[in-house]
Amino acid sequence: LSAKVQGIVLFAHGARDPAWARPFEAIRDLVRAARPDARVELAFLELMQPALPEAVNAIAASGVREILVFPLFMAQGGHLKKDLPVIVEGLRNAHPQVRIGIEPAVGEVPEVLDAISAWILDTAGPGP
Amino acid sequence: LSAKVQGIVLFAHGARDPAWARPFEAIRDLVRAARPDARVELAFLELMQPALPEAVNAIAASGVREILVFPLFMAQGGHLKKDLPVIVEGLRNAHPQVRIGIEPAVGEVPEVLDAISAWILDTAGPGP
Repeated sequence: LSAKVQGIVLFAHGARDPAWARPFEAIRDLVRAARPDARVELAFLELMQPALPEAVNAIAASGVREILVFPLFMAQGGHLKKDLPVIVEGLRNAHPQVRIGIEPAVGEVPEVLDAISAWILDTAGPGP
Repeated sequence: LSAKVQGIVLFAHGARDPAWARPFEAIRDLVRAARPDARVELAFLELMQPALPEAVNAIAASGVREILVFPLFMAQGGHLKKDLPVIVEGLRNAHPQVRIGIEPAVGEVPEVLDAISAWILDTAGPGP
């Protein structure tokens, strides 16, 4: 993919509770503010809209030819190892002119683990 | 709770795939390294061991009187709003001498959202 990807999809699990989407909307807004030149969309595996195909179809229809999917999951489980590749394979077949990449889970990013650890230590108190 | 809590529980969802636990183990190890004076334990809602009651019981048995539960969930859904309070209420009844606090989800922590956004922007490329 290019050094500057124009299609960014934040892929989250989804839940029945509408408030569940808030952190993902906050991340989307941060990324949109920094990348006003890009298409930045939230998409969900289940229970919330839009689904991943809907978001990717809309970005592809706008003429973007490179899309990166960022799974906003804490860790790699069945959803990312089994469900996501199947969905993306279907999207690649549907949009052969679009390159679609999949990033690892949030929990695979050392800087995010550091930020989580720092929050825990700030809250529980510093070491001896 | 005190400025320095001696019981720290990292509470994650759990999954069938053993590799799913890795990010949580990494966070636990970071916190343990910084807080060798504390009891720092992972616990799971389902599919993985130990369950939350098991971890809290073990920490309480060691004499710790203050425990903070950090939900390593991306967002607040039914698991944190319904399941977790019921489990913790049972633990408070079982251990009236132990103060047990519940922290918000990872996705409620601004510094974590910033770290996730920075990862996305680093990967997809900077703004215009």
